[in-house]
Amino acid sequence: MTETTPRGGPAPDQFRELARQLRVDSVRAAAAAGSGHPTSSLSAADLMAVLLARHLQYDFQRPDHPGNDRFILSKGHASPLLYAAYKAAGALDDEELLTFRKQGSRLEGHPTPRRLPWVEVATGSLGQGLAVGVGMALSGKRLDRIPYRVWVLCGDGELAEGAVWEAAEHAAYEHLDNLTALVDVNRLGQRGPTRHEWDLDAYARRLKAFGWHVVAVDGHDVEDVDRALHEARSTAGQPTAVLARTVKGKGVASAEDREGLHGKPLPDADAAIAELGGPGRLRVTVQAPPAARVLRATRSGHLELPRYERGAEVATRDAFGQALAALGTARGDVVALDGEVGDSTRAELFAKEHPERYFECYIAEQQLVAAAVGLARRGWVPYAATFAAFLTRAHDVVRMAAVSGADLNLVGSHAGVAIGQDGPSQMGLEDLAMFRAVPDSTVLYPCDAPQTARLVAAMADLDGVRYLRTTRGATPVLYGPGEEFPVGGSKVLRSSGADRLTVVAAGVTVHEALAAAAALDREGVPVRVVDLYSVKPVDRRTLRAAAEQTGCLLTVEDHRQEGGIGDAVLDAFSDGSPVPRLVRLAVTGVPGSASPAEQLRAAGIDAESIAAAVRLLVEHVVR
Amino acid sequence: MTETTPRGGPAPDQFRELARQLRVDSVRAAAAAGSGHPTSSLSAADLMAVLLARHLQYDFQRPDHPGNDRFILSKGHASPLLYAAYKAAGALDDEELLTFRKQGSRLEGHPTPRRLPWVEVATGSLGQGLAVGVGMALSGKRLDRIPYRVWVLCGDGELAEGAVWEAAEHAAYEHLDNLTALVDVNRLGQRGPTRHEWDLDAYARRLKAFGWHVVAVDGHDVEDVDRALHEARSTAGQPTAVLARTVKGKGVASAEDREGLHGKPLPDADAAIAELGGPGRLRVTVQAPPAARVLRATRSGHLELPRYERGAEVATRDAFGQALAALGTARGDVVALDGEVGDSTRAELFAKEHPERYFECYIAEQQLVAAAVGLARRGWVPYAATFAAFLTRAHDVVRMAAVSGADLNLVGSHAGVAIGQDGPSQMGLEDLAMFRAVPDSTVLYPCDAPQTARLVAAMADLDGVRYLRTTRGATPVLYGPGEEFPVGGSKVLRSSGADRLTVVAAGVTVHEALAAAAALDREGVPVRVVDLYSVKPVDRRTLRAAAEQTGCLLTVEDHRQEGGIGDAVLDAFSDGSPVPRLVRLAVTGVPGSASPAEQLRAAGIDAESIAAAVRLLVEHVVR
Repeated sequence: MTETTPRGGPAPDQFRELARQLRVDSVRAAAAAGSGHPTSSLSAADLMAVLLARHLQYDFQRPDHPGNDRFILSKGHASPLLYAAYKAAGALDDEELLTFRKQGSRLEGHPTPRRLPWVEVATGSLGQGLAVGVGMALSGKRLDRIPYRVWVLCGDGELAEGAVWEAAEHAAYEHLDNLTALVDVNRLGQRGPTRHEWDLDAYARRLKAFGWHVVAVDGHDVEDVDRALHEARSTAGQPTAVLARTVKGKGVASAEDREGLHGKPLPDADAAIAELGGPGRLRVTVQAPPAARVLRATRSGHLELPRYERGAEVATRDAFGQALAALGTARGDVVALDGEVGDSTRAELFAKEHPERYFECYIAEQQLVAAAVGLARRGWVPYAATFAAFLTRAHDVVRMAAVSGADLNLVGSHAGVAIGQDGPSQMGLEDLAMFRAVPDSTVLYPCDAPQTARLVAAMADLDGVRYLRTTRGATPVLYGPGEEFPVGGSKVLRSSGADRLTVVAAGVTVHEALAAAAALDREGVPVRVVDLYSVKPVDRRTLRAAAEQTGCLLTVEDHRQEGGIGDAVLDAFSDGSPVPRLVRLAVTGVPGSASPAEQLRAAGIDAESIAAAVRLLVEHVVR
Repeated sequence: MTETTPRGGPAPDQFRELARQLRVDSVRAAAAAGSGHPTSSLSAADLMAVLLARHLQYDFQRPDHPGNDRFILSKGHASPLLYAAYKAAGALDDEELLTFRKQGSRLEGHPTPRRLPWVEVATGSLGQGLAVGVGMALSGKRLDRIPYRVWVLCGDGELAEGAVWEAAEHAAYEHLDNLTALVDVNRLGQRGPTRHEWDLDAYARRLKAFGWHVVAVDGHDVEDVDRALHEARSTAGQPTAVLARTVKGKGVASAEDREGLHGKPLPDADAAIAELGGPGRLRVTVQAPPAARVLRATRSGHLELPRYERGAEVATRDAFGQALAALGTARGDVVALDGEVGDSTRAELFAKEHPERYFECYIAEQQLVAAAVGLARRGWVPYAATFAAFLTRAHDVVRMAAVSGADLNLVGSHAGVAIGQDGPSQMGLEDLAMFRAVPDSTVLYPCDAPQTARLVAAMADLDGVRYLRTTRGATPVLYGPGEEFPVGGSKVLRSSGADRLTVVAAGVTVHEALAAAAALDREGVPVRVVDLYSVKPVDRRTLRAAAEQTGCLLTVEDHRQEGGIGDAVLDAFSDGSPVPRLVRLAVTGVPGSASPAEQLRAAGIDAESIAAAVRLLVEHVVR
């Protein structure tokens, strides 16, 4: 534990001494910051000390070591404890510890892997750590077959999140005995007692019912904790939860089990530090991981994308499934996840070719995306697919994935009113807005099969959150097999020097725009048509040229007016350059059931509606 | 059951005959539509028959009868069964039944209360029915004290949704013995077997652990089902789940327990109808509810909003809590819900005054919003509050609330980078985008305490989803106590005939914009400042005037560039009228920890950044 750890591992007194130091450093960090969560750190200090000093296998010099255990602080607000542990392990020094929460510091209020290499995933939105941990444990167990463990330190309050139970179900179903949840049952949430307070049995009943092995311990009895972690490591066939009864603020009498102290530095930090025995200079030697090698073939072959005949009718969701299967053949690092709709999204086409890299997450979209985040953080290239509408269920997970800087592909099928009879509950109408607002995201919306196939392949190599939107019904193949679709580009499908305005469309409305343009052309009203398949980033050059040359952009989208293609177009003009007239056709109100064609008509985004809007604009508005 | 139901209630044969008719009508409706989910209807037909003929107390002539039981079809895709039941109850006729899924029909693919008065809430996004049912059961038990029951028919597949377990936890904790979940365990999801198939005990263990009374039955044995529903009605102190083992496609041999038939009309509907015994003309007499009166005082007094001194520093979250408490005093129909952060959102100020109308939902944002939907549908005016960032967790619930046409107030605190040290996980930076894209929503973002108080009161009387965004830190009081803030309006805070451009701000950036304007004024650069407190709808008139008079709008927001105030401004110009130059200052990338002032500076949305942007624009861009 110290530099001279005996071979048999640390003695209980050494655990206690380490825990004492973790507490002191937690109090010191929060005091230096003038904010933070010391009491939430104090409750879990003994758990952390035993884990760090005996059970964790981790090389802080090589955070990318494939054999490393993975530690996730799901209760991310207890970051002072995490940073105190990093300091005890020699990963950072005391000076840096005291930069906690200051501008420019790596030690943020809630930990993120953007700044610290030992943080597996950003936390701070409660109830997500276990879900991501399941993805990492799946990687170890089902893909890389490396015997690392995933340790997730959870709060008790966050067990109220449904996402935790999606994760619990998934972990048990997949027999993830390499996953351990340490639950810091300190009885107090931020505004008062949790629902179950110290009723450990309430949590034990639930977790056991979900198929977990459960050990209840006194979270301040280091020997008890040590035994529990040994038990977790030796339990086969199921994940283990260590339920630790703890006291919030433990070690500082005036703070112990007291309400009103959540998320605040201790009122008298100096006295607290003295009460805890003063600063320590312990340095713990964390066990090195065993040698491990990642054997996956990242690129095993040439990518042979599916080919489509021009003029054939193919749904872009079909092209997605076919392209993903092909991509999986070419690349051994591509994996796919399904939310129990793989027959609809066509992710099942990947499953047929690569069942070993396919993960069925059932109807649990938060878990679907969180597992993808976990796999992405372990180096895989995940594609998680469900209906676009149901990805809203995972909005917070997507948000946190972006905070993590995770690279992952999300695919939403059944976009827009074009799905037809199923009605509004199944229509993705806000997905573009949701994904555009994700920092550093990419948002793609193809209109035909070859374009879809190319974009499915291209998105694998981008950074951050990549989103692809697909359509339920068949659409004509417009593009030839050699056509390129750079991200950030667009395609001008019709253009002349006499264009009266420009119709900007994407996905299903591209075909409506082309039909409208053909009809208008017969009337002597030439219009330009742009296929804006890259909704973010947008093709600034093409849109600006269209604005300059035609003066007016008419956007048409199978999406809400807010946050979609109409707003995206503005991204091309937001530097102070002149803005053209912008008219937006989009879905308003709540549609009912109807055929796809009736839906497009009712929403005012079909060819006839576009042509009517153009006629009106040409007559009354544009020069 | 028929018009001549004997006094003792229907005999088992009558249940069976009704179930037979429900099956036939389900098959007929889907056949007429050419789409839909007959097999998912057939599995639950016996459950529905027994419920309808004996246990449900409901007056179809008076769907607003306060004593009515409430039935929620959580597995909304089984809508053919629901409509068949409505027909059997005489609520609609056979002709209308066969309009299923056609344009203009009230019988949508998934039921919504927008079109049918007997539908309690829109379903179709799985795993939400129980959550909303909890809200309705809370209304009956804790508020109105009317002994109606809430019956929720769930699928087995949807129990994988975490939202279901948030609801299960909430229901048991509140001892909602007026709530019954009927789970149609038909073993098959849409793409294949569910995780637990026919392992009823797996579900029973989980639900029991969560505190539910559980009865397992053969879902096709009407006597067994009848006994179970009696047991549910006579169970006190806890909610009951009736786990029914059923066969998907039951009654049509070629469809029974067969994969690949989900969501499709039966291949040979005529043969299926013949096999089921042909159409029936049963008319069931549904039990009338007992007399019941709603005693709540909707408006018990004069609204006395809190008053603030101009120049004082008050956080808008404080003003929200104070105004909500005052509103609760004036109106007996206002209720509040907390996601275990009431001390932060200040919803706790309402709790202190009106504890009987305050609902603690713990850290479960889907349940927080779904319970609010349930309360709204029972006539309450709910305010549900948590951090703006965590409302993303409930995005799908909000989306479905809009499909329902539910009227509810959502309040997101801790908006933007201005929260400071806690870092990106806690920053609401996409909430405006998310709520703007909700159909018929209202989005409000006040900058000071009096404005907040007025808007909190005003939003109670609006339609649809209303969202209010509040700020963590204190901001100066700008407005006097008599100032009005109409929804859809804005305030011009600085204006002159010589304005070089217009700064459009809201919330925290209003104060930055004013400081920038003062500095610029000293430099001889007058700018207009607009407080756009109503982000949706926007004040078209004021923005157009500003555009005409100053030529350029500079938007400044503590939010992502996509979907926020910068995009909202475009709503004022989307009818083809000339668009001014639009420049947007917003948050890009992923912030770290820093003080609030440092955050605003780093994001480029503080006074100095605004002034710098104006100088640049004035020098190089605007005339």
